Amino acid sequence: DNVGEEGEPECQKILSGFKTSSVLSDYTREKRIFIHGTLADQDAVVIMEKTPFREDDLAEFFSNSTLKLDMKNDIYSTYKLRAPPHLNEIKTTVVCPATEKHLNKYKRQESFLVEETKTDYESITLPFIEKQNTFSLQWVYNILQKKAEVERIVYEDPDSDTGFMLLPDFKWDQKQVDDLYLIAIVHPMNIKSLRDLTAEHIPLLKNIWQKGQAAILERYSLPANKLRVYLHYQPSYYHLHIHFTNLGYDTPGCGVDRAHLLSDVIQNLQSDPDYYKKRTLYFPLRVDDKLFSTFKEAGRV
Amino acid sequence: DNVGEEGEPECQKILSGFKTSSVLSDYTREKRIFIHGTLADQDAVVIMEKTPFREDDLAEFFSNSTLKLDMKNDIYSTYKLRAPPHLNEIKTTVVCPATEKHLNKYKRQESFLVEETKTDYESITLPFIEKQNTFSLQWVYNILQKKAEVERIVYEDPDSDTGFMLLPDFKWDQKQVDDLYLIAIVHPMNIKSLRDLTAEHIPLLKNIWQKGQAAILERYSLPANKLRVYLHYQPSYYHLHIHFTNLGYDTPGCGVDRAHLLSDVIQNLQSDPDYYKKRTLYFPLRVDDKLFSTFKEAGRV
Repeated sequence: DNVGEEGEPECQKILSGFKTSSVLSDYTREKRIFIHGTLADQDAVVIMEKTPFREDDLAEFFSNSTLKLDMKNDIYSTYKLRAPPHLNEIKTTVVCPATEKHLNKYKRQESFLVEETKTDYESITLPFIEKQNTFSLQWVYNILQKKAEVERIVYEDPDSDTGFMLLPDFKWDQKQVDDLYLIAIVHPMNIKSLRDLTAEHIPLLKNIWQKGQAAILERYSLPANKLRVYLHYQPSYYHLHIHFTNLGYDTPGCGVDRAHLLSDVIQNLQSDPDYYKKRTLYFPLRVDDKLFSTFKEAGRV
Repeated sequence: DNVGEEGEPECQKILSGFKTSSVLSDYTREKRIFIHGTLADQDAVVIMEKTPFREDDLAEFFSNSTLKLDMKNDIYSTYKLRAPPHLNEIKTTVVCPATEKHLNKYKRQESFLVEETKTDYESITLPFIEKQNTFSLQWVYNILQKKAEVERIVYEDPDSDTGFMLLPDFKWDQKQVDDLYLIAIVHPMNIKSLRDLTAEHIPLLKNIWQKGQAAILERYSLPANKLRVYLHYQPSYYHLHIHFTNLGYDTPGCGVDRAHLLSDVIQNLQSDPDYYKKRTLYFPLRVDDKLFSTFKEAGRV
């Protein structure tokens, strides 16, 4: 339908003028696709992902779907099912105007495992981070200063040293707890990543762990032992943030090559205040990642 | 529509009489669900999976979809998209009548994150392991003694302290390197898991890391920086073994909640010989796992 429901934004054919240039990547297992094209003469990226099934909708879903037989063999038969559109929505993100950087980010590329010693961090990674346009973190500052996404805040602790904001990740449509994905963004402005963490940040990390878990239990009735809580290294942006995902959901990005459990991070800092300053860290980098080129120029890959 | 196209089977509301009893399992990442219910008074299982996007359909798809705005921040906006039903079909399998065996097969067992302190290991996990039938490791000993799978050996170092056997994992069909998966089984017989590792095992672990990578490069032309090398805790059997998988393959079981990078393990033992003896470790256990019951009886979950 094209008519908005009472009090809801209207449905519109916003993408009817979208002209596809190329498919940047296509994750068939997850039913997710990244498409480059133009929208009103501007470069744009459209990201679409089919949504999980919702238990609450099943009765209405079965009543109003039609099926076309594909194959029947003994007790097994397969069909193509057509569902009512409002019960089979597709989560869609539009990035417009999109820059070259977006196109590269969404393009599927080969990855290599990179070894980053303490010295590599200081001589390669840190200068790379410091050269980045600070404007790229504007959306994070908008959230922390409540200039954007205010209505999405799930929990907030305003303390400037140990506080954080907890919000749903963009990848989560918030319709079911099964694929719950929230991000805690820290209030301190000077912690770029895992590498900056020392024993002085233990109160911050413990606070996020405890209050994040409590807020998720209260809002979503999901207890701590159903949560996977971790940091990424390298992160996708250099303002410290922590991922809370449903343990039962095989979240992309929770692999051991990129994720670090918050509980391990806290224990490591407790036993060695400079654990993450000294450690050699390993992580995959895509060949189109500028940090990869920087490691390559330094002869480190 | 309810009317079949020319020459095609007709679309019918075959599932309108389906009564849901329970969701057996729900794979939200893959958008796949297994539902138990009744169809004309018979037990039935309905399996539904959303379909990947089809590049050929995109133009028609965009022309005829409507979108409802969820959120707008800077250049990013998210929507719920409603697509024409014939471009957004759902692959559906019906098993009818379904037996008890089908229901068990399709039922997903819930997992919980378990916290295991040093004391928990000594008082719960270790007695649990020691009570296990040693016969359950017979297949491992058969491999190490070359009584089985001799033709599958990819590499062998026979040293009784630092040696190991490298073989393809059963999950890998060895048809393509994309999903390469090998296991290194250590020759020492007294290392049950990560928990038993101390500084004395560093030569063993380094040897496996170096020679395993070299053997994979030689046999499969896959270099070290395309490999993810890790241990599981809890492992699926208590004789130390190390996983080598293709970094580009999103292997089940490589998640941060269960996997420990070999490179991290070596560094942790270098800086603290008893790191894994003292540490609190976290891992998911399925509710039908006997170790989970043992933790539950001890009041630890």
